[in-house]
Amino acid sequence: MARIPFVTFLGFFSYIIRVCRASGTDIALDAKATLLHRIDSLNLLIYTCLLTLTVLTIWVFKHRRVSWLNETGLAVIYGLIVGAIIRYGGTTNEVTHIDAHPAPDSKYNLSVPPDMLWFHFPDKIQISSGEVPVPNKTYAYSFRGEIVNIEQNEIDLKATFDPEIFFNIILPPIIFHAGYCLKRKYFFRNLGAILTFAMVGTALSALVIGALMYGCVQLMPASLASSFTFLDTLYFGALISPTDPLTILAIFSQLKVDVNLYALIFGESVLNDAVALVLSGAIQNYEERYSNDGGFEITAFLGAIGDFIGIFSLSLLVGAFMGCLTALMTKFTHVREWPLLESSLFVLMSYAAFLIAEVCELTGVVAVLFCGICQAHYTYNNLSSDSRNRTKQLFELLNFLAENFIFTYIGVSMFTFPKHHFDPWFIIAGFITSTLGRAVNIYPLSFLLNLGRKPPIPMNFQHMLFFAGLRGAMSFALAIRNTVSEARQAMLTTTSLIVIATVVLQGGASTHALAYLRIPTGQGQSDENEALPYRDVRSPADIGFGLRNMDSTQPASCDRATEGPRNGGDKARLARLWGAVDSKLLKPLLTHARPPLTETLPAFLRPVARVLTTTHQYTQGDNTLRRTDSDSDLCIDEPQPVPTSIDPQQLWPGHVDTRISVEGITGSNI
Amino acid sequence: MARIPFVTFLGFFSYIIRVCRASGTDIALDAKATLLHRIDSLNLLIYTCLLTLTVLTIWVFKHRRVSWLNETGLAVIYGLIVGAIIRYGGTTNEVTHIDAHPAPDSKYNLSVPPDMLWFHFPDKIQISSGEVPVPNKTYAYSFRGEIVNIEQNEIDLKATFDPEIFFNIILPPIIFHAGYCLKRKYFFRNLGAILTFAMVGTALSALVIGALMYGCVQLMPASLASSFTFLDTLYFGALISPTDPLTILAIFSQLKVDVNLYALIFGESVLNDAVALVLSGAIQNYEERYSNDGGFEITAFLGAIGDFIGIFSLSLLVGAFMGCLTALMTKFTHVREWPLLESSLFVLMSYAAFLIAEVCELTGVVAVLFCGICQAHYTYNNLSSDSRNRTKQLFELLNFLAENFIFTYIGVSMFTFPKHHFDPWFIIAGFITSTLGRAVNIYPLSFLLNLGRKPPIPMNFQHMLFFAGLRGAMSFALAIRNTVSEARQAMLTTTSLIVIATVVLQGGASTHALAYLRIPTGQGQSDENEALPYRDVRSPADIGFGLRNMDSTQPASCDRATEGPRNGGDKARLARLWGAVDSKLLKPLLTHARPPLTETLPAFLRPVARVLTTTHQYTQGDNTLRRTDSDSDLCIDEPQPVPTSIDPQQLWPGHVDTRISVEGITGSNI
Repeated sequence: MARIPFVTFLGFFSYIIRVCRASGTDIALDAKATLLHRIDSLNLLIYTCLLTLTVLTIWVFKHRRVSWLNETGLAVIYGLIVGAIIRYGGTTNEVTHIDAHPAPDSKYNLSVPPDMLWFHFPDKIQISSGEVPVPNKTYAYSFRGEIVNIEQNEIDLKATFDPEIFFNIILPPIIFHAGYCLKRKYFFRNLGAILTFAMVGTALSALVIGALMYGCVQLMPASLASSFTFLDTLYFGALISPTDPLTILAIFSQLKVDVNLYALIFGESVLNDAVALVLSGAIQNYEERYSNDGGFEITAFLGAIGDFIGIFSLSLLVGAFMGCLTALMTKFTHVREWPLLESSLFVLMSYAAFLIAEVCELTGVVAVLFCGICQAHYTYNNLSSDSRNRTKQLFELLNFLAENFIFTYIGVSMFTFPKHHFDPWFIIAGFITSTLGRAVNIYPLSFLLNLGRKPPIPMNFQHMLFFAGLRGAMSFALAIRNTVSEARQAMLTTTSLIVIATVVLQGGASTHALAYLRIPTGQGQSDENEALPYRDVRSPADIGFGLRNMDSTQPASCDRATEGPRNGGDKARLARLWGAVDSKLLKPLLTHARPPLTETLPAFLRPVARVLTTTHQYTQGDNTLRRTDSDSDLCIDEPQPVPTSIDPQQLWPGHVDTRISVEGITGSNI
Repeated sequence: MARIPFVTFLGFFSYIIRVCRASGTDIALDAKATLLHRIDSLNLLIYTCLLTLTVLTIWVFKHRRVSWLNETGLAVIYGLIVGAIIRYGGTTNEVTHIDAHPAPDSKYNLSVPPDMLWFHFPDKIQISSGEVPVPNKTYAYSFRGEIVNIEQNEIDLKATFDPEIFFNIILPPIIFHAGYCLKRKYFFRNLGAILTFAMVGTALSALVIGALMYGCVQLMPASLASSFTFLDTLYFGALISPTDPLTILAIFSQLKVDVNLYALIFGESVLNDAVALVLSGAIQNYEERYSNDGGFEITAFLGAIGDFIGIFSLSLLVGAFMGCLTALMTKFTHVREWPLLESSLFVLMSYAAFLIAEVCELTGVVAVLFCGICQAHYTYNNLSSDSRNRTKQLFELLNFLAENFIFTYIGVSMFTFPKHHFDPWFIIAGFITSTLGRAVNIYPLSFLLNLGRKPPIPMNFQHMLFFAGLRGAMSFALAIRNTVSEARQAMLTTTSLIVIATVVLQGGASTHALAYLRIPTGQGQSDENEALPYRDVRSPADIGFGLRNMDSTQPASCDRATEGPRNGGDKARLARLWGAVDSKLLKPLLTHARPPLTETLPAFLRPVARVLTTTHQYTQGDNTLRRTDSDSDLCIDEPQPVPTSIDPQQLWPGHVDTRISVEGITGSNI
């Protein structure tokens, strides 16, 4: 039916086609664009299939309760297998290339290669099919990287992506999800220890690894030694220090490990990603200052420390600001009547926090992390229930896919990324020093922390913290960002191997490590009153940071738990102050929570307070407040006690709503 | 507290730093990578802010019931404003470049520029800070495009993206969402008309526009005339022919316009995107064959038609196959116990359909469209309720963001994309011919259709179909794919202008057009029995394609409506056959629907049937079947009749569940 009118103009068409001629260039370029598109698609298809395979295998493993291999390990192993197949079994993509030299009269004396080449296409070459000669065209070419091994270079287009993709696309949802689903109560209760491990520990570990690696490199053959500077090895120390909680936490939440240990490991690894990123940036900036000044390094060094603190806190502010802005937008507009618009706004504002920080030369990861925390703490209360669900499920899914993608990519790129540089000495040194760095991070700091900490961190927890030092996405992303020089390529190779080894081997062994270290597991333990080291701080309902509804005059009986080793009194006062500000100013300002600002602000600010208070806040009773608050903690707090008759390993599958709090964090075991 | 141990090793650190020297190259390259990252982030931030602004303005417009400007128009206008600011107000990014020439001994005689340059960095240049001279390094540069205007080229990095992003990232979710939320009942009821408009009409329109444009170009100044061949203008015809339903349909579903008119416009625009894409591919292939043969064009022409039919149907098969495979996976595994895994599988399989088609040189858009239809028809029934929600909401959100992004980008790129070529004659000719092309698409074909169609398409519907010929995402994506030659650049400019003009002006006027053409609107009209042309086919519950539960012996009283102009009897028999196959074979095989295969398959296939039937299918009653089926149509069918007392313009905001069927399609007015 549809064909008949089509046939009627066939004759006309074929006539028309005969009277005109075509020049081949455009169509040939179209064909080339199509070819490149096919290569892109093939690369994406490889990863899509790998992820599908991983999802199916995860299901089989969950179904059969396999514990000796975890899902991230799986993703890496599948990646390695497929990478090897691509490398040794695949056909090569035909990439045409031509050698080029700078124009004789060009003046260019920077130490780095230019971003673009303007390539003057030789006019003596005639087009093969068409009649029109090309009048001396100029084409633009953009920088891709250094060619080290000329034979290997055609592998370049195989299953590799621009490293920028990790920082702009893959990392933000992972980090945001971590912040959005952070169990704030336990996080802030262990804040002292978490900050010590994450800030001091990571810096210490980076320094120790950097110094030891520099020493090792000096003992190696001269060719390698000359290509590494101390700043290079320090950079390596910074990038290899952050830990990845994924694998461990998936197992932890499956086995219902002690929530405080969970909070320590999760909190540390969330923050040390941020710290490592800022630290590596500070090392770069140090170098820039250093080379400009020429002398007096202490200025540059203090500048680097200033950078570190400044960038971290400014990024934090950017993230918190965007989170609060979203809260205000959702409070004072009626956008919640259109949940799709509301969800879009939420997603866009959160991503904007990341981007603003990046544009301001701050660290987007830190911004998006704290934006996530603020979104969970304030905005979540204002959202319609549709948007709450949608945002939670969206980020859960994105996080799951992004994480598995990055681990698959680590596996595949081990074989297909053209810029690996295998140096056995550097690799061995990397493994040893990164283990030492983790030890230096945990044991001395735990000792110091235990001096002032009331429920001390017991030795088996310390061993577990040491054991949980798996390396992951952040290390890899930092390592693959710049692979121009041989030194950086050796770092990338070593980092990839460390990530693969720790994820597969340590991850696989972690269930046994938990058993070996006699760390209590099982759902029941948080309700039992047996002599656990954290038992005494677990009973009160609203402690630590959870005191946002607490009156400031109420005695802060529980603040012991949030203290670091020293200055306990300050800490308690600070926490009390913050709790008062939060419950009396921020919550009423940013959400519909009671008491309204009209009751909490001093009299002379009443007119302002009246403008900032919604009708909803006046009219609702205290019951509504309670309900809203518990909603806000849905993906943050512990699950409600589940009947202990349920075997923790045999979770009731449909029972997701209460479990989202624990398992939403890893996003991988629902 | 966290600072104190940090300070203790300050001295050690500063000592270490003093004993080592750093070579500047790596760090400088790091800094360069950071700069490029910041530019990327800034570009993304611009679009994120634009989208946020659009979302907020949409909300305000919805809140205040503004009808003279629609949301896509808004996105375009904001894009234009920001594009102008970037173009004329922004600072230029410093991109270093150097002129290059081919190596004297290089042999390279293709008509197209090479993919890569291997640039030999001159060894006479010394590094400014370090001591190590660079030993004659070679860097790789990849092809970016032609430099036409040397002064303008630094704008290249401003707020532009690789066109591949549209085809790999932006289009798939939009098209999949269209398929996933297609109202199958009305779509298949009007299949004849939709296919005629989409297949024949688009080809006709492309040919008419191509021929007229070729004529116009010949009348223009010689410089332009020589750069266009007939195939170029035919390609322009193909890319400007597809229509974009977004704006019109948003208004339609807000005003509750006749569902059959809705189905005609939506169905046509979904399919003509696919047809235009395949057609433009066929034109490219034609050219390749033509240049190889040199003579006898009719072979090449028939080859192109073969291409067109083959690619379209193979893509359809790939998509349907992946959809059915997902259905089988979700039916026969228990992956539904982990909704996150299930949703991931769903997303990955759907994206794989797109990618497989692209890799096989088929058309991913067609594949993903039919994959979406199959996912809605089969897989959706097997999903857990969590996954149903999650996938629906996910694609709704992605669709909304992707659509608004592409329209914003069209606006911004009008100013910032460096490869525009403004040629007033070509632009005027483009506007006139594209209008004529749309007229040729609608009026003659409607006349032919009305010869055999029982409820004819009335003139006011025809005018509305003509008026709904807005151009959008697909035209733009095709136009921006290749902008190397001047002819293609003129096409891009013209296409952008046509898209902007139709979306802003026609889109804004469409409410008035509906009123002017006296097209019935309002929620009540689908329940009223007034003399609407489609009234007689609207009452029965299971007609057209909805007859999947119909017995094959039952008389097909309603199939008149699905007929095209001719061969009505065949059509009815085909539809009946398909309905029987679907309800007796495919549904029981791919979902848990009853009757089970054991009852429908012939006796000798019983053992196979028993393997393919789940316990669930045996045990469930007919009630369950009904419920499952109505679930499957949740996002496909008409909403349940809502009390007519509700003013259609004043939708009850919280009442989303029943409205998702109508408004989910445009994804923009909830």
